[in-house]
Amino acid sequence: MNFCSACGATVSFRIPEGDSLPRHVCDTCGEIHYSNPKMVVGAIVESGDRILLCKRAIEPRHGLWTLPAGFMENRETTAQAAARETLEEACARITVGEAFAMVSIPHISQVHLFYRARLAEPGFSPGDESLEVALFDEQDLPWNALAFRSVDLALRRYFEDRRHQRFTFHAEDLDYDARQNM
Amino acid sequence: MNFCSACGATVSFRIPEGDSLPRHVCDTCGEIHYSNPKMVVGAIVESGDRILLCKRAIEPRHGLWTLPAGFMENRETTAQAAARETLEEACARITVGEAFAMVSIPHISQVHLFYRARLAEPGFSPGDESLEVALFDEQDLPWNALAFRSVDLALRRYFEDRRHQRFTFHAEDLDYDARQNM
Repeated sequence: MNFCSACGATVSFRIPEGDSLPRHVCDTCGEIHYSNPKMVVGAIVESGDRILLCKRAIEPRHGLWTLPAGFMENRETTAQAAARETLEEACARITVGEAFAMVSIPHISQVHLFYRARLAEPGFSPGDESLEVALFDEQDLPWNALAFRSVDLALRRYFEDRRHQRFTFHAEDLDYDARQNM
Repeated sequence: MNFCSACGATVSFRIPEGDSLPRHVCDTCGEIHYSNPKMVVGAIVESGDRILLCKRAIEPRHGLWTLPAGFMENRETTAQAAARETLEEACARITVGEAFAMVSIPHISQVHLFYRARLAEPGFSPGDESLEVALFDEQDLPWNALAFRSVDLALRRYFEDRRHQRFTFHAEDLDYDARQNM
C-alpha cells in the first residue's frame, strides 16, 4: 500500500497511537488501513463413498487437484461460501453439512475452512477455474497431485474419521514449508 | 474506497473481466482491490466452573460485558489470536483448548470464532480496552448486559454442552437484528 484509499495522499507504515502493531496510516487524513487474514472456504463433497475433486485451470497450482474452495466474499456466511465455490468450480449443487476442518496458515495470513457436504443433485462439470471435475474413491485419490497442503490435511482427517465412523471438528495449523514455497 | 492504494489514481466499482462481483478497480494501473470478511477470534476462558468476562472500555458497546476477542492479525494462527486478545483485554495468560463455536454474521461481513481455554496462571486484570475483568458462574452471568449476540450465542451453547457433559463444535449464522442495529 502506497496511497490512502480514502483521500489519495501518501501513507506511512507506523504504529498508530494506542495500537501495538504497525499499520498503513494516511499522512494527510489520518485514516488507519488495517490488513487482516482472509478466509478460504470449501467443501468435501461426498457422493456415496466418493469425494469430488477439481483439477485447477488457474494458477497457483494449475493442473493439480483440489477441493472446491475459494475466498469468502463479503455479506455471505461460511456455509454459503462453500456452496457458491462448489457451484462455481464444479457446477455442482450441494447440501452443506457440518463444519469439518479449519486450517490456519499464518505465513500467508489465511484460514482455510472445509465443510462436509453431499451432492444435492447428481450432476457436476468443470467451471471456468477447473479443467476437470471427478469423484474419487479413497484408494484412487491423487494424493501426489493435490494443489494445497490444507486440502491434503483435510482429506487425511476426513478418511481417518470415516474409518473410525466418527467425524469431529479439526482445527490445525500449517507451518511454512520451504519445499512448497508456502 | 476512492483511490487506488497502489498508484493513487481514482478507482471504479465494477465487475472485472472473468469475475462475477463488482470490485474497486483502478482506472489507471488496473489493480483489483478485493474486500473480504474479517475474523474476530476470542476465548471462553474457564477457571473451575467460572468463565472470564471483560467489561468493555471502548465503543461499540462501552460498559457491556464480552468474552475476550478481537480482530485476527496477519501472520498469526486462530489459536494465537485467541491467546493474544485474552492477554490484551484481560491481562490473562491462557492455555487454548478446542475450537468451540464459529458464528457467521454476513451483514457485517465477519466470522466470529471462539475457543475453549483455561487460565494458565491465576492472575487477570483489565487491559486498556476493559473497564473490569471478572469470573462468573453461570447463574451470575450478566446475560442482559452482554455486548454482542455472537458472545451470547457462544455462551449459551457452552453451558448447554457443559450440562450434557459433551462439547461439540458449533457453526451457526446470525441474521440482521434491527433492534440491535447489527
